[in-house]
Amino acid sequence: MNLPVHVLNGPNLNLLGLREPEIYGSDTLADIEARLNVRAQTSGRAVVLRQTNYEGELVEHIQQARTEACGVILNPAAYTHTSVAVHDALKMLAIPIIELHLTNPHAREAFRHKSFVSPIATGIIAGFGASGYELALDAMLGLVAT
Amino acid sequence: MNLPVHVLNGPNLNLLGLREPEIYGSDTLADIEARLNVRAQTSGRAVVLRQTNYEGELVEHIQQARTEACGVILNPAAYTHTSVAVHDALKMLAIPIIELHLTNPHAREAFRHKSFVSPIATGIIAGFGASGYELALDAMLGLVAT
Amino acid sequence: MNLPVHVLNGPNLNLLGLREPEIYGSDTLADIEARLNVRAQTSGRAVVLRQTNYEGELVEHIQQARTEACGVILNPAAYTHTSVAVHDALKMLAIPIIELHLTNPHAREAFRHKSFVSPIATGIIAGFGASGYELALDAMLGLVAT
Amino acid sequence: MNLPVHVLNGPNLNLLGLREPEIYGSDTLADIEARLNVRAQTSGRAVVLRQTNYEGELVEHIQQARTEACGVILNPAAYTHTSVAVHDALKMLAIPIIELHLTNPHAREAFRHKSFVSPIATGIIAGFGASGYELALDAMLGLVAT
Amino acid sequence: MNLPVHVLNGPNLNLLGLREPEIYGSDTLADIEARLNVRAQTSGRAVVLRQTNYEGELVEHIQQARTEACGVILNPAAYTHTSVAVHDALKMLAIPIIELHLTNPHAREAFRHKSFVSPIATGIIAGFGASGYELALDAMLGLVAT
Amino acid sequence: MNLPVHVLNGPNLNLLGLREPEIYGSDTLADIEARLNVRAQTSGRAVVLRQTNYEGELVEHIQQARTEACGVILNPAAYTHTSVAVHDALKMLAIPIIELHLTNPHAREAFRHKSFVSPIATGIIAGFGASGYELALDAMLGLVAT
Amino acid sequence: MNLPVHVLNGPNLNLLGLREPEIYGSDTLADIEARLNVRAQTSGRAVVLRQTNYEGELVEHIQQARTEACGVILNPAAYTHTSVAVHDALKMLAIPIIELHLTNPHAREAFRHKSFVSPIATGIIAGFGASGYELALDAMLGLVAT
Amino acid sequence: MNLPVHVLNGPNLNLLGLREPEIYGSDTLADIEARLNVRAQTSGRAVVLRQTNYEGELVEHIQQARTEACGVILNPAAYTHTSVAVHDALKMLAIPIIELHLTNPHAREAFRHKSFVSPIATGIIAGFGASGYELALDAMLGLVAT
Amino acid sequence: MNLPVHVLNGPNLNLLGLREPEIYGSDTLADIEARLNVRAQTSGRAVVLRQTNYEGELVEHIQQARTEACGVILNPAAYTHTSVAVHDALKMLAIPIIELHLTNPHAREAFRHKSFVSPIATGIIAGFGASGYELALDAMLGLVAT
Amino acid sequence: MNLPVHVLNGPNLNLLGLREPEIYGSDTLADIEARLNVRAQTSGRAVVLRQTNYEGELVEHIQQARTEACGVILNPAAYTHTSVAVHDALKMLAIPIIELHLTNPHAREAFRHKSFVSPIATGIIAGFGASGYELALDAMLGLVAT
Amino acid sequence: MNLPVHVLNGPNLNLLGLREPEIYGSDTLADIEARLNVRAQTSGRAVVLRQTNYEGELVEHIQQARTEACGVILNPAAYTHTSVAVHDALKMLAIPIIELHLTNPHAREAFRHKSFVSPIATGIIAGFGASGYELALDAMLGLVAT
Amino acid sequence: MNLPVHVLNGPNLNLLGLREPEIYGSDTLADIEARLNVRAQTSGRAVVLRQTNYEGELVEHIQQARTEACGVILNPAAYTHTSVAVHDALKMLAIPIIELHLTNPHAREAFRHKSFVSPIATGIIAGFGASGYELALDAMLGLVAT
Repeated sequence: MNLPVHVLNGPNLNLLGLREPEIYGSDTLADIEARLNVRAQTSGRAVVLRQTNYEGELVEHIQQARTEACGVILNPAAYTHTSVAVHDALKMLAIPIIELHLTNPHAREAFRHKSFVSPIATGIIAGFGASGYELALDAMLGLVAT
Repeated sequence: MNLPVHVLNGPNLNLLGLREPEIYGSDTLADIEARLNVRAQTSGRAVVLRQTNYEGELVEHIQQARTEACGVILNPAAYTHTSVAVHDALKMLAIPIIELHLTNPHAREAFRHKSFVSPIATGIIAGFGASGYELALDAMLGLVAT
Repeated sequence: MNLPVHVLNGPNLNLLGLREPEIYGSDTLADIEARLNVRAQTSGRAVVLRQTNYEGELVEHIQQARTEACGVILNPAAYTHTSVAVHDALKMLAIPIIELHLTNPHAREAFRHKSFVSPIATGIIAGFGASGYELALDAMLGLVAT
Repeated sequence: MNLPVHVLNGPNLNLLGLREPEIYGSDTLADIEARLNVRAQTSGRAVVLRQTNYEGELVEHIQQARTEACGVILNPAAYTHTSVAVHDALKMLAIPIIELHLTNPHAREAFRHKSFVSPIATGIIAGFGASGYELALDAMLGLVAT
Repeated sequence: MNLPVHVLNGPNLNLLGLREPEIYGSDTLADIEARLNVRAQTSGRAVVLRQTNYEGELVEHIQQARTEACGVILNPAAYTHTSVAVHDALKMLAIPIIELHLTNPHAREAFRHKSFVSPIATGIIAGFGASGYELALDAMLGLVAT
Repeated sequence: MNLPVHVLNGPNLNLLGLREPEIYGSDTLADIEARLNVRAQTSGRAVVLRQTNYEGELVEHIQQARTEACGVILNPAAYTHTSVAVHDALKMLAIPIIELHLTNPHAREAFRHKSFVSPIATGIIAGFGASGYELALDAMLGLVAT
Repeated sequence: MNLPVHVLNGPNLNLLGLREPEIYGSDTLADIEARLNVRAQTSGRAVVLRQTNYEGELVEHIQQARTEACGVILNPAAYTHTSVAVHDALKMLAIPIIELHLTNPHAREAFRHKSFVSPIATGIIAGFGASGYELALDAMLGLVAT
Repeated sequence: MNLPVHVLNGPNLNLLGLREPEIYGSDTLADIEARLNVRAQTSGRAVVLRQTNYEGELVEHIQQARTEACGVILNPAAYTHTSVAVHDALKMLAIPIIELHLTNPHAREAFRHKSFVSPIATGIIAGFGASGYELALDAMLGLVAT
Repeated sequence: MNLPVHVLNGPNLNLLGLREPEIYGSDTLADIEARLNVRAQTSGRAVVLRQTNYEGELVEHIQQARTEACGVILNPAAYTHTSVAVHDALKMLAIPIIELHLTNPHAREAFRHKSFVSPIATGIIAGFGASGYELALDAMLGLVAT
Repeated sequence: MNLPVHVLNGPNLNLLGLREPEIYGSDTLADIEARLNVRAQTSGRAVVLRQTNYEGELVEHIQQARTEACGVILNPAAYTHTSVAVHDALKMLAIPIIELHLTNPHAREAFRHKSFVSPIATGIIAGFGASGYELALDAMLGLVAT
Repeated sequence: MNLPVHVLNGPNLNLLGLREPEIYGSDTLADIEARLNVRAQTSGRAVVLRQTNYEGELVEHIQQARTEACGVILNPAAYTHTSVAVHDALKMLAIPIIELHLTNPHAREAFRHKSFVSPIATGIIAGFGASGYELALDAMLGLVAT
Repeated sequence: MNLPVHVLNGPNLNLLGLREPEIYGSDTLADIEARLNVRAQTSGRAVVLRQTNYEGELVEHIQQARTEACGVILNPAAYTHTSVAVHDALKMLAIPIIELHLTNPHAREAFRHKSFVSPIATGIIAGFGASGYELALDAMLGLVAT
């Protein structure tokens, strides 16, 4: 049986689609999850999307992906820059990890230039807004197909 | 008439496909250009791929893209980390710019963590090897379709 | 109807009034909430005070203030210095934010000199102990009266 | 007899009320001094407000407060970030010191993030414009009442 | 009555014994707790072992130790390097604190060289794997015996 | 035949027991050596304790341990922070190394936060005063028993 | 009526022409002022040259230029590198500012490489000795002619 | 015979006059060269203006100036901040060097605050747009007249 | 005729002898000047002691010493650490300069470890309280006797 | 057939022998190439010497050495300190690399203390002037003889 | 009985008087010791002067001064900047310590600006050549007379 | 009479040839000394090789070379990176100094990138293993032949 792709999301992303839709679009995480499931269908994979504002819960989402997912697409949001715990949890995975950001962190404040996720990510996709989720899914399906 | 997508490549990428094919694959830049042109066809765009080992020539490739391309996919290789001239040339573009890396620079030496391109790139794709060119093209076609 | 002022408190402040009362006074957060409500009465505002030791929950308290409060008085305690997630949540607010500290962080360890809250706070009040809550409320009532 | 509160002001504050009144209001330092005296009346204190563009003169204003004031409200303006002499003068005071800023220095250039006054201030109030003087006076009257 | 020793554990330690047993051994935290209780018996102490992935919950575990434990053995894992909140909670304790690490953080990445716990720990034990828990217990029993 | 454990000590430790006995206890290094030998007896090991104020001699003590000891317990004192020569000598050992400090260096001056020994130590024990020698011996006997 | 150009000079420049004339020439500030007035004549501008050793007085010279000058040529000398007060005073000007140095600060000590004036200067002229005043005047007359 | 003044220009300056003429004016480098030749005539000097996007070619332009020019006006653009090769070539000149910038680098990004040219330039002129070329020529004619 | 020794004093030293006499002694600057004059008598020198809280005035005291003194003993107090203007004024002297501090700046805050005076002082005397003036005078008389 | 040794030279070395012969000697690169060929003869190797001022061309010289040389002696001159492209090209070589400098970079400016070549060089020879080429050749012949 | 003053000297000072006598004078350490003994006579103190090139031996000289001297004048030479061992030995003294340097370290290389001795010295005397020993002795006799 | 070449070696080099001969070869320092003497014969020089683990003794070896050697080849090993005393001793030599390393320090840990010897070495040879001694001798014989 094919394990699903886990799409994990960090703090404040629960407001996606609700806040400043003219910038970020009006798609909520639920809309994105639905659209990704359609896209993944032909490859025989499901997509499970989760969100949390808690660093500890994000650690647990990653721990669960260890045995339940074929790959992790992670939009760590603010925890990108501060969480060694997320870094440590990711280090235990033997599956591909794609780091995803809606915006380009290097075009923002200096404290967003450091990532605890990048050193252990398979690949990085940043700056394409919500459509980055689809690029990341395509990339992941390519990685897990091999 | 639709302007093409320019795919610009920096130093040492002329050896792609010739060196360590077990790691980087055996596709040369010419192979990649051919494959990207097939992929872009349905969107009515051509793809022009160029490579140079010279910082000055890369600046000129970017200057030409200013009036001749609808978007730039740039794999700046070593000049990512050292070239203010490339940064300045990119700043003059009014079209989308995608920064592309075969590997994940943040998983390598510290001097690769700083990018003069990231602050002005629309988006970043890194770590997916040669298949990153296809992801970048898809992303670019999405950006220029809007 | 007048929206209330939210007074949000970060980690370890649940022990206020219980620990070292000779330094911090014997007022608990509940006592302070009561006193602030009395003080706010003449301006027709209520005061809602909340505390949490969890970064994720503090993010959610701030998210709720987005639609339910006229202003936020935030004593972020330790998260002042480490939380990009709190910073990001505050950035979504369109109401005044007052950063409050019982003690003066600049008279303490170097790691307390950096604040992720200050760059987006309307104003800062620090070093007045528990009576800082009252100063902050007066300041907030002035800000939201305009 | 009750000693007065000294409100000391550093460089360029002599232009307050004259420059960009739409931002800083049209109250001059003289207006503020008058208003503070009214506010302090019920507590039986007078308020003496002084301003200087000279670091050396600010040092002397602080030295005089040593014996002539019950507390110092100091808006050191530019000298906040550069004056060890002001720091040394303040260190000789045995009375409360409140550091006051019209704007929030942490939302401005990096060189304004360092303060030679904060490490020895009793409390800090920043970002409330001219109304910060009133908050600071209330805070000071509280401190000297004890 | 003798208060117990609290052995508090931070993020990702819930996987101890389950992941890479050839490196970390196959003992789970429950096994360790049992073994420590046997060892403590002769000194008339019990051992209470707790684990959490949440910074906020770890803060609360420490707060509880304030009144319920004779000493704290803390393996803060990732929060060692990032948590001011844990630092602040530990500062409220009047009992001995032993900082414990399975591996030697100084032989790992640079971001693990800074500890927010070390400056307030009574002692440090690092690099002895799971057997560090027993060394720490012996050390703690020595400290609380005095 | 069982090789002994070498317990090597750096500068100023010759004064242990003679200076400030109320803080450091009145045990001299000779007392400690005697006590450790008793403790090691059941495991069939001897303990050899040496001290020197000379960096060069400490290097030679470590070189001798290369062929004459089963493990090294090293209290490098001041040379912890300054000696690359000690680091290089330790690198030639194929036996376990325990770094020992009477006090916790991280609770002291910043120049004591950097250790040239930690990156190559098997384990670290710090902050337990003279009783740290016994903890270190127990730890070492465990390491060499395997 | 045409407002004059103010040429403001910082500390130690009162010794110009008196000290090391073989290096700096024997022109005093008064000689320079005279020569500049001749040069400005054809453009219908006067030149007012002032000098002070006091940071506070330099602030006041700048404040006066706000309403009395068409442009400021500022040789801030030592205050270039240390004065936030001068920076703040300059920020209030709506007229062109030229930063002038007799020598090239970048060919001197590292502490002269940082300038609080450069970020808000219209232009910079450095390294041409006393003849820099004439270059600066020409540049200023060009700027205010537009 | 009088040697000419060389006016050397670095990367992206070939677009001067073509890009954003409302900011930089519509004069091309050719227009500027013509105008400078007129200006230099009375002093019996010609002006030779060259531009290149290649660091290596800029090095060669400077090498040629060694024997063919009486002075160098250098607008190194991006290579200001990154080229040790340009620095080394300039070091071999025994003639005056004027560093020229259209804009003021100190009012821009931090990476433009460091110059490899300034430490060996005779003088610096920055921030006066295209008219800086004329100021630089006047300054140079003064320097070589002596 | 023998030129006198100038003993120049920076900010807050006007309070010497008045503040904390149990630490700094009860000698005022006037007392010290008197005592130094007695001590210098046998060498046929007078001592002139001056104090100012103004950086600009201290610059002028140093400028006067240029022609009126045989040597300068300078206690720059706070301006030690912040004044490039004092540094520049001292650089113009061709006579011996002794830097004097009542306390040892290196045993105090980090910002007191940097001195703009030390790099150009002939000698330094620090940490001997008011008796440092006498040591400095003896040293100066030795220097000017040669 | 024996592959030759490539001796590659970076910017400004084309002036060797022409500039300051009293310091660098009057040998040109062509003279050196001739002399090295004589010296290599007995070992049956030829020496090919190339020079370029262009970073891109130096990259290509190194790429060619990949298949055409038995070893590379590289005097990267200024590109030592700035070129990641040269670093990347060198990384593709499987033959010995000797880094050569005429002078000792560590006795010069700080920006010459960092080398992008040293971390991947087999050996380094610096400070022996033109005779360093012969030392490097001897060393290389030793390396490739093994 | 009066304990003597110990004058301890670090590495390379054994060459004093033998090397560059035109700069350092021709007095050897033995000459200085003799002269200091004469000077100390009236105060009833002897002077013992010692020198070593060994860090470890310098530590032992300091340890001996603990019980055998009334004060230590220490010229630590190179160990000033590198020896934590010397710092630790000095910390054990309860007698006055004067740090002495022949030259002014702050007028030399940057690595001489940091001192491990200054933070615990009573006073500092630097830059007076060999006559600094006499100044230091006078200062010490004053300190131990009290 | 021809003075010999001194070949001085720092800590841990006494183990050369005994430890990891497959990496460092099986030649001891004595073997190397013998071989160097043969090589130097034709130039009429002897070679004296010394080794010490003590910084102080290395200082003395260098002091002796001052009068007894025609040149110093120094392999300072660990003291390269930490010894100001060695730096100071070397500064007194008027003969050529060659810094030698068996391995390339720049390909190792960051703390080996800083050398206190390089700034005063005539030349540097690194990374050629034991055969570096012969290269260094050849270089030295060339230097002292002139």
